[in-house]
This record gives sequence, C-alpha cells and structure tokens, in this order.
Amino acid sequence: MQDFVFQNSTKLIFGKDKEQFVGKEAVAYGRKLLLHYGGGSIKSSGLYDRVKESLKDQGIEVFELGGVKPNPRVSLVREGVALCKEHDISFILAVGGGSVIDSAKAIAAGVHYEGDVWDFFDGKAEVTDCLPIGVVLTIPAAGSESSSGTVITNEEGWYKRSAMHPSMRPQFAILNPVLTYTLPAYQTACGITDMMAHILERYFTNEKNVELTDRLCEGALKTIINHAHTVLEEPTNYDARAEIMWAGTIAHNDMLGTGRIGDWASHDIEHEISGIYDIAHGAGLAIVFPAWMKHVYKHDINRFAQFANRVWDVEIDLNNLEKTALAGIRKTEEFFSSIGMPITLKEANIGDEHFSEMAKKGTERGPLGNFVPLDETNVLEIFNLAR
Amino acid sequence: MQDFVFQNSTKLIFGKDKEQFVGKEAVAYGRKLLLHYGGGSIKSSGLYDRVKESLKDQGIEVFELGGVKPNPRVSLVREGVALCKEHDISFILAVGGGSVIDSAKAIAAGVHYEGDVWDFFDGKAEVTDCLPIGVVLTIPAAGSESSSGTVITNEEGWYKRSAMHPSMRPQFAILNPVLTYTLPAYQTACGITDMMAHILERYFTNEKNVELTDRLCEGALKTIINHAHTVLEEPTNYDARAEIMWAGTIAHNDMLGTGRIGDWASHDIEHEISGIYDIAHGAGLAIVFPAWMKHVYKHDINRFAQFANRVWDVEIDLNNLEKTALAGIRKTEEFFSSIGMPITLKEANIGDEHFSEMAKKGTERGPLGNFVPLDETNVLEIFNLAR
Repeated sequence: MQDFVFQNSTKLIFGKDKEQFVGKEAVAYGRKLLLHYGGGSIKSSGLYDRVKESLKDQGIEVFELGGVKPNPRVSLVREGVALCKEHDISFILAVGGGSVIDSAKAIAAGVHYEGDVWDFFDGKAEVTDCLPIGVVLTIPAAGSESSSGTVITNEEGWYKRSAMHPSMRPQFAILNPVLTYTLPAYQTACGITDMMAHILERYFTNEKNVELTDRLCEGALKTIINHAHTVLEEPTNYDARAEIMWAGTIAHNDMLGTGRIGDWASHDIEHEISGIYDIAHGAGLAIVFPAWMKHVYKHDINRFAQFANRVWDVEIDLNNLEKTALAGIRKTEEFFSSIGMPITLKEANIGDEHFSEMAKKGTERGPLGNFVPLDETNVLEIFNLAR
Repeated sequence: MQDFVFQNSTKLIFGKDKEQFVGKEAVAYGRKLLLHYGGGSIKSSGLYDRVKESLKDQGIEVFELGGVKPNPRVSLVREGVALCKEHDISFILAVGGGSVIDSAKAIAAGVHYEGDVWDFFDGKAEVTDCLPIGVVLTIPAAGSESSSGTVITNEEGWYKRSAMHPSMRPQFAILNPVLTYTLPAYQTACGITDMMAHILERYFTNEKNVELTDRLCEGALKTIINHAHTVLEEPTNYDARAEIMWAGTIAHNDMLGTGRIGDWASHDIEHEISGIYDIAHGAGLAIVFPAWMKHVYKHDINRFAQFANRVWDVEIDLNNLEKTALAGIRKTEEFFSSIGMPITLKEANIGDEHFSEMAKKGTERGPLGNFVPLDETNVLEIFNLAR
C-alpha cells in the first residue's frame, strides 16, 4: 500500500427536499453569492425558484451566471471571474451537474489569481486558494460535488484540461435523489458510465496490496450495475435513484483510491474526443474504456480476472485466466451497450479523421496513464480498437 | 435509504514514519499542547521521544498527562480538564489507541464546560464545543481517530457511557502501520474484533434499500477477515498491518453507516460487562456479538443469510435460509475463537453473579438497540446465551 493523505471535508446533505436548506448552509460564507447554473431545466422544474427563495430568506444578495454547457468553456469561466471580482462576491453556488460544478470551481480559483484562469489548466500556474463553493446536485455522474478537481474546455484549440487543489472541494453539497427523476435516460446512462469509470480508473493499479480498496471499489461497481436498469426503467424509483446518486459521490470522493495510484489514461483519451466532438463525457468513456482494457489487459491478467470474477460474477478459469479476463471486458462493454451507451466511435458518428491529431495532442505533455504508460502510438491503437 | 448528513473532516496521514510530521500538524492549533498517553509502551518503543522531538522542533510547549487505562476513567479526564484550564492549553495530542483518544476527547469537551464532565455521559448536558485534538494511532481498533464519539467509565458505580459530537472528531490522525508491529497478539485480535463489531453494528439494520453501504461493509469485513491471521502470525508484515489499520478507520468513520440506522445493542451490552469486569472491549464484543446474533436472527433471516453468503462464502440454501443464516453466525463465532478471543463468558472467567444487575443497569435508560429493541429480559437472555 502506498502512503497517502486523505481528507475530504465536504458536508454532504442527502435526502428528499434538502435543497430547502441551501440558504442556511450558504449564509455561513457571506451574503454576496454567485448562482451558477446551466440551461433552463432548473427553471422549468421549479428548482431555481426554490433555491432563490431559500437564499432570499437568509438575506443573501444573489448574482447570476447561467448558460454553462456540457464540457464547460473557459470563456464563461472568465466571465464568472470578472463578475465575482467586480461585485466582491464571497461564495459560489453551483446548481446542476458536473459541468456547472467544474465551471464554478474554475471561477472560484480564478478570483484569487491575477493572471488568466486558463493558466491553471495548461500548467502555467497552480491553484493555491479558492472562493468557497456550495452545490445543489442535479446529475449524479462526475462526483465533482466532493472532489478537488475540475475539467474545463478552451474553445481556442479545443483543449480540455484539468486542475486540482484541495481548496476546490465544495464546502457542502445537497443531494436530493428526487431532483434526478426528470433526467433523460441517455443522461442518466452517461452519469452511470462516468461514475463507473471513476472507480475503474482507481481499480486498475499496479499496487499489489490494496485489498480493502479493491473490495470497496468492487462493491460500489456492483451496486451501480445492479441499479442501472432500474433507474432507466423506473425513473421515479427513489431507492434506486438514491443508490446511484450516493454511489456517484463515493466513486469520486478519493476514499476508494487511498493507498494506490490510479490510471486515468481513459479519461485523458476521452477528453481528446469530447474536446473536439462535443460528445457527452460518459458516452466517450463507454467507448474508450473497453478499448483501453483490450489494449492493456495483458499487463496484469490476474487483476482483470479478479475484476471479471468479483464485479461481473464470471467464474475463474484457472486453466485460462486470459479467457476470464476477456470475459470481464466483454461484460463491461455489453453492460455499457445495454444502458444505451455507444461502445464504438462509429456509433457516435465519429470517424478516424482526427485520430492522429488527438493521439498527438493527448500525449504532448508526456505518456498517458499509470497502469501502463501510453505513448502516441498506443493511444492511436486505442482509437483504432474503438473504431 | 434514510436521509442523512455526512461530514468527516479528519485529515488522515497514512504511512511509514509519518509521526515525524506531528509537530507540523499540531502547531496550526497553537503552541500549548497536552500530550496524553497510556502506559510505558510508547516510551520503550521510542515513539514518545520522536513525538516530543517533533513538537519541540515547532516550538510547542508540552504539558503531559499519561496513565490512561483501558476503559478510560472519568477521574483522569477530570485531571486533564483541570490541567488544560490551568495552563490555557489550546490542543490535545493523543498518542495511543482508542482509550487514549476517547480520554482526550472527553478532556477536550470538558475544557469548554463549567460543570462536571460526566454530565455529558449521563445525559445532563450536551457537548457543544471542544478543544481541537490530534492523534498518533498505535492500536487499530476503536476507530476513534476519526469518529465523533467517546466512551468513558465512571468508577463510582462502574458506569461506562458514551457521548458524541461532531466537534470531537480529531483534526488529524497519523496512522503508521509500523507502530502496530509490537502490539501483542491478544491486543491485535481485540482490535480486529472491535473494528468488525463496528461494521456489524451498522450492517444489521431494518433499512431495506442500502445495497451500496451493505457492499462496502461486506468488503471491509472480508478484508479484515482475510488479513487477521496474517498479522497474528507475521506481526511485522507491513501490508497486512496496513490493511487492518486502514480498515479500522474506515469501519468507524461513518461512511459505512450512511443512509441506515445501525443497531449498537451489542456495544451497550458489552459496556455493562467491561464496566464491571475490566475485560478488553474487543474480547467482550467477541462474546456478546454471537450471542446477540443468536437472539435476534429470526427477526430478519434474509439479512443474516446475505451476511453468511457475502461475508463468509456460505452457499445460500434457498430451501433452508435459516440454516444459511445460522452457518454465518457459527462462522463468526469460530473466527473470533480462531484469533484467540473468548466466545463465552466462562472463557473470560465471568460467572452469572451480575447478570441481573447488568441487564437492569444496561436498560435503565430504555431498550437497547434498533434492529430489535431489547428490554431487560432480552438482555438477560443474551447473557445466558453467552454463558
């Protein structure tokens, strides 16, 4: 087991109607707040009004910045930074999913920085301090509600890059499974894929003595798999929505990754695709992850066989562990397909025209991943496996 | 799933030699520190000197209070409170296991209170505020290093009672598995039993839709079971010690109990025994838990069968679920015995002379437990099952 430091202070408030407490939670961080959100869904659902009401009840002055898109853009982040500086805003409330939260985090980091906020994402500067952030979560997927990271897209060159710092962990996050009832099936499935990918990135490690975190990962994966079809078939099933929502947070709160070095190449490769094609992150991961698995499984057949057995209930064939390992990869692929995800680039209408460019851009800062470090040629092969 | 609020801010610093950073962590909370510990083992191991050195390097003035006993006593807590008030101490560092940490927490709570600290334990007052606490953990068992609770024994009447408050969670805890190499086998086994009991208390719930936390509990239990004999046979096996140490923290950091109401009757019943007999808490739990299981399993045979199957790999007999359930209880009992724990009161040289008194005292504030609420007669029957 690797040495580690684990600390995650985010206060998670889980259950029905909990968004009514957002004002009470937010007021502890001052009375000038930026309400950050995406499109119109929070307005049509009535959530927007309920949140505003709760903030108003606490005498909080609300500034607004909507319009966050999936794969959130640095241009809007810059707008948010300017707004916060101009009005001396003390707190950012993100109401939405991972894109809105990531955008809020980038704004929060930019406010305490003199230069351009993109500096944090292309490695020119490091985040040291942030405005405090709160979250009302509407999409269980990214785990950003208690994570320390953010992913932002720069429209100039379509770069999609991440930044991390403990100060970016939200102070609180309100998780009401009922708010996810109206999520369309496709978005629900993208979220399921994303949270599974967060666990898989941690699971495939070269660290040998990590049974506890292996088993926590396997348990979380099994739970997600067992409830995925239920939330798709019965979108208002509270218990299933609750399991999925809580699993999305657990998947990415760093507990499951303690003592091990995760891989993260699939995320990086997916960022190249969704940086160019504006495909949903989850859908991109459903395509990339099985291809990545096929490319790397021989590096540690035992681990892939364990994955097949413990997560997918594939019986271990001691005379042919490779068969066991491959069955697990096939099950993963079939599962993503069964919940409506594309599992090839073709299904997502993505051709091979940018393969070389994406492989080059993705590896220009060095090899990707830790389980097996991947160079440009390897990444190109993964694109070919994902055709 | 029940609504819940989860927040655990304790910074966990895990790995070899990490105690060298204790001064750097502690100095953030002021320069007057109470060093709280038990007997001589931290002195003979050299840990005491290393900790003092690290504190001295940061210019921290150290006051000392040693002598914490297993089942820590309120008399020493009162001494600690007086010492902190007298010297205007700003931080308490607990170096030891659960007893030392619990004693430190009680002192920390008492410092900000006018009345007698026992008021918190017999329900006359509630903890509202605490001195900050840090931990260098030497015994993986109680999980007190990141929990919000403390258990203290009052020698007048031998009452053993608990108190809880979020402010009692330590600010940081340093977990170095090497520090546990010298733990005697019996104490190691007591710790293993204690951490398993913390998970079992959460596992046996009446909440139906809690698959995620069920699976996290099962994974943690399997990991502890799989490494228990290794740490007993190879006390200096770093990887096994690390798994056990991290499992002890995870078992009791409240994550595994989210969304469910745990039972906790076995802990309460054990407190009655160890309040009178000064038996190790873990040993008491190894006796009480199987007896409790035998008394209550018919309340939810499915849950006990699931436990038998997923934790102990007992095949489910669909034609006789009770048989499956009972096999799981037997496996639990056999396991405790196999690691050197007593599983009957007789093995711990405890007769029936106080059965009636303990059953009465344990239930005088109301029925025990939530899975099945137990009255005086039920508790008496459990003592009889544990003979």
